[in-house]
Amino acid sequence: MEKIILNQIKRPRLNNPVLIGGLPGIGNIGKIAAEYLIEKLKMEKMADLYSQYLPPQVFIGDDGLTHLVRNSIYYKKFPKKNDLMILVGDFQGTTQEGQYELSYLVLEMAKKFNVSAVYTLGGYSTGKISDTPRVLGAVTNQGLQDTLQEGGVVFPKGEPGGGIVGSAGLMLGLGKELFEVDGACLMGETSGYFADPKGAREVIKVLSKILGVEIDLKDIEERSKQIEEITEKMQEDVQGRPGHKDDLGYFG
Amino acid sequence: MEKIILNQIKRPRLNNPVLIGGLPGIGNIGKIAAEYLIEKLKMEKMADLYSQYLPPQVFIGDDGLTHLVRNSIYYKKFPKKNDLMILVGDFQGTTQEGQYELSYLVLEMAKKFNVSAVYTLGGYSTGKISDTPRVLGAVTNQGLQDTLQEGGVVFPKGEPGGGIVGSAGLMLGLGKELFEVDGACLMGETSGYFADPKGAREVIKVLSKILGVEIDLKDIEERSKQIEEITEKMQEDVQGRPGHKDDLGYFG
Amino acid sequence: MEKIILNQIKRPRLNNPVLIGGLPGIGNIGKIAAEYLIEKLKMEKMADLYSQYLPPQVFIGDDGLTHLVRNSIYYKKFPKKNDLMILVGDFQGTTQEGQYELSYLVLEMAKKFNVSAVYTLGGYSTGKISDTPRVLGAVTNQGLQDTLQEGGVVFPKGEPGGGIVGSAGLMLGLGKELFEVDGACLMGETSGYFADPKGAREVIKVLSKILGVEIDLKDIEERSKQIEEITEKMQEDVQGRPGHKDDLGYFG
Amino acid sequence: MEKIILNQIKRPRLNNPVLIGGLPGIGNIGKIAAEYLIEKLKMEKMADLYSQYLPPQVFIGDDGLTHLVRNSIYYKKFPKKNDLMILVGDFQGTTQEGQYELSYLVLEMAKKFNVSAVYTLGGYSTGKISDTPRVLGAVTNQGLQDTLQEGGVVFPKGEPGGGIVGSAGLMLGLGKELFEVDGACLMGETSGYFADPKGAREVIKVLSKILGVEIDLKDIEERSKQIEEITEKMQEDVQGRPGHKDDLGYFG
Repeated sequence: MEKIILNQIKRPRLNNPVLIGGLPGIGNIGKIAAEYLIEKLKMEKMADLYSQYLPPQVFIGDDGLTHLVRNSIYYKKFPKKNDLMILVGDFQGTTQEGQYELSYLVLEMAKKFNVSAVYTLGGYSTGKISDTPRVLGAVTNQGLQDTLQEGGVVFPKGEPGGGIVGSAGLMLGLGKELFEVDGACLMGETSGYFADPKGAREVIKVLSKILGVEIDLKDIEERSKQIEEITEKMQEDVQGRPGHKDDLGYFG
Repeated sequence: MEKIILNQIKRPRLNNPVLIGGLPGIGNIGKIAAEYLIEKLKMEKMADLYSQYLPPQVFIGDDGLTHLVRNSIYYKKFPKKNDLMILVGDFQGTTQEGQYELSYLVLEMAKKFNVSAVYTLGGYSTGKISDTPRVLGAVTNQGLQDTLQEGGVVFPKGEPGGGIVGSAGLMLGLGKELFEVDGACLMGETSGYFADPKGAREVIKVLSKILGVEIDLKDIEERSKQIEEITEKMQEDVQGRPGHKDDLGYFG
Repeated sequence: MEKIILNQIKRPRLNNPVLIGGLPGIGNIGKIAAEYLIEKLKMEKMADLYSQYLPPQVFIGDDGLTHLVRNSIYYKKFPKKNDLMILVGDFQGTTQEGQYELSYLVLEMAKKFNVSAVYTLGGYSTGKISDTPRVLGAVTNQGLQDTLQEGGVVFPKGEPGGGIVGSAGLMLGLGKELFEVDGACLMGETSGYFADPKGAREVIKVLSKILGVEIDLKDIEERSKQIEEITEKMQEDVQGRPGHKDDLGYFG
Repeated sequence: MEKIILNQIKRPRLNNPVLIGGLPGIGNIGKIAAEYLIEKLKMEKMADLYSQYLPPQVFIGDDGLTHLVRNSIYYKKFPKKNDLMILVGDFQGTTQEGQYELSYLVLEMAKKFNVSAVYTLGGYSTGKISDTPRVLGAVTNQGLQDTLQEGGVVFPKGEPGGGIVGSAGLMLGLGKELFEVDGACLMGETSGYFADPKGAREVIKVLSKILGVEIDLKDIEERSKQIEEITEKMQEDVQGRPGHKDDLGYFG
């Protein structure tokens, strides 16, 4: 079998679309944000990717139906604006080769639709729970930095150290070097201990501004409040115990 | 060499066969059940698969003869009914790629014989020894659920969580998405601590009903009784000790 | 680059040669025995194999010269008898795929020379040091068993359990199933704690009888005596200590 | 995508160039020395290599710009002398296959430029900090040994044991066996506990003599002095404590 099987469901005509990558990762920020956009913008699925680079696994839904693990691409057309493509999925490629091949194939496909820029979404793990998570940025060219800063993204020196590992980094790197597409990574600050809607919310806000698209934030605000209550409760419990530390530590 | 070498021994004409997958796995339920069917239905071998995706190993029989590890497919023709193909083997593919390639190749071959449905057999590990193991199900489409429920299969909400990993899951997922074949997984409940004939027996009973094929259950009942006696004995021993717990824990 | 690069140095005409496989393994029995035969029979090198399936490494000799790791094949012509090919090397393939590909390629090459049988040499680890190590056998067909038993090989029921992993097993399995060549594995008993010339000596004796070739045993007897003295000394030391056990345990 | 993507930026005419390999490794000796040469000799980049054999990662610079991980080749033309090519990079290939493929591709490219010799740079880890690190050598043929010894390289018997693992070894081994290019490895002695400019300095000195190229050593002397001061300070601290040992142990 082919290493990646691309099942293209629809072939829309897209106007210089922006490609957004939101696969699972730190705090699941990217996946939460991307799926939220897909839902709120009522985006349509245009492709499924099945692959040997993903675990050999099906999920079982509450209805008893199986779901073969995959990555999927959704799209949305906007009048008089860049259209939108979003990559989401159950997993990132599980091997180094898989990471490269999957990112390459998605970029190759996006290039055929005249992709104008790539934004990858991710989390930046600080180990601490923040009330007002920042959104950190990294870009493939200096020009994009201004656009992002206007949207509220910060570029603190030395943060994040070590670079960006996985799909969120690779799609930028391959995009720039092999496909001549510029891109940026938006990293929502997160403790990294659990799937974190608060970091995702901040990323969604930034995207809303950068893309000039209105997104209803009510549900993600609600989920952020819920997680806030849970973590505050846990912190109180921890602080009530002898020998507690200020930072929450790992309880995910 | 080719990654998988298919040695097709016989080329029978088959009538919309049902394909059953019974490779080693949790509690070895699938393998025990599949081999039992092959024996009791006096099925004939139609193909051997040798592969780099299996361990580089031969087994040695009591007669000193070596046996290269493999997967094999057996068949049985039935008058006025769907014929039967069963996949068994020494190992599942040992890598992610191997899992996909082996499942794909078996499905591809089954498709040539106009396979009508795929049933994969597996175990559902509960960590406890049950007197009356259930058979849980998962299906690729809703229609199959009714058929299975009539055969005694249950679909409890939220069980099993996490999905089905390996051949038993992948053959369903690839079957549905790439080969347009519907399928179901039958998971016999098992402690998961040892090769478990009781869980296998329940799976065999279900298959007997679903396929409308009579299968002599005497031997598997006998083996179930033996394992029951052994585990009861061990539980008594454990309960005689101070600090015992109700569940058996791992003693495999 | 190709995964395996075969550098064929000589192209002798060979008369239905017997192929002997002696790669590193348990107690290094196979490698010691094979290299001893090559030396004593003054065999000539006919091929080197370089491969991605071997570690990315060079060795450095006492002369400061580098040696790229490899497998090599030597040959010897005999008047009025089957000729001989021997496979030796620095490593076995380090991955499952590598094990299959390397064994396959060697068999393919041997087949071109009309190989008549494959004997693989290995160790059988008992965890105890034996004065008179046995040579255990496994065969691909019953006929070979008699020949081996006449040579002193034993076939105890249930030994060795679990089969033969790696090149020594795979060359038999692939030989039988894909190349229609019969074969046997000769396993010299060894503690498995160190490179063991005694087990190798017994394997060499057996080979000498089976092949009908005289081999000067003086040097391997000498090395066996040396290792015997060392291990006896160590056992005395151990037994002098409080709490010693009868078996030596691991001191390699 | 191709497993390795070679982006050839310039196609200079080179006169029997010497190829130097300086990828990350023990004490980072090779990488430090190679990058120092590139800087001091004002060498120009001729090629970038992106590859699935490198981690799926981008680095982020202080300017917020991303850098896709890579290997790169630089060159320098010299009047009336062998020209120079230097391989540097962020990582070595992360798999065995990657090590072979990357080394092979670089050698293949160098061969097209009529490479005359390959020098690989590495570290030799002694576990002790030395005031006057030696440069040990290994060669693919005896002739090169004299040249190196004149440059100050030593060939102590039995050092280094076990051979040379990774790019520094493989480029010599593949160079000799597959490309008929002779080569040598220069190994700067280092504790191995940290990126070590002192070992790199000694390697640079040797290269300067062998290649007959003047290299300004001021900066690397400076960095060596700094690391000396740091490690001396740490040794004093350690020796002030009870139970200190003479050797520094691991504090990296």
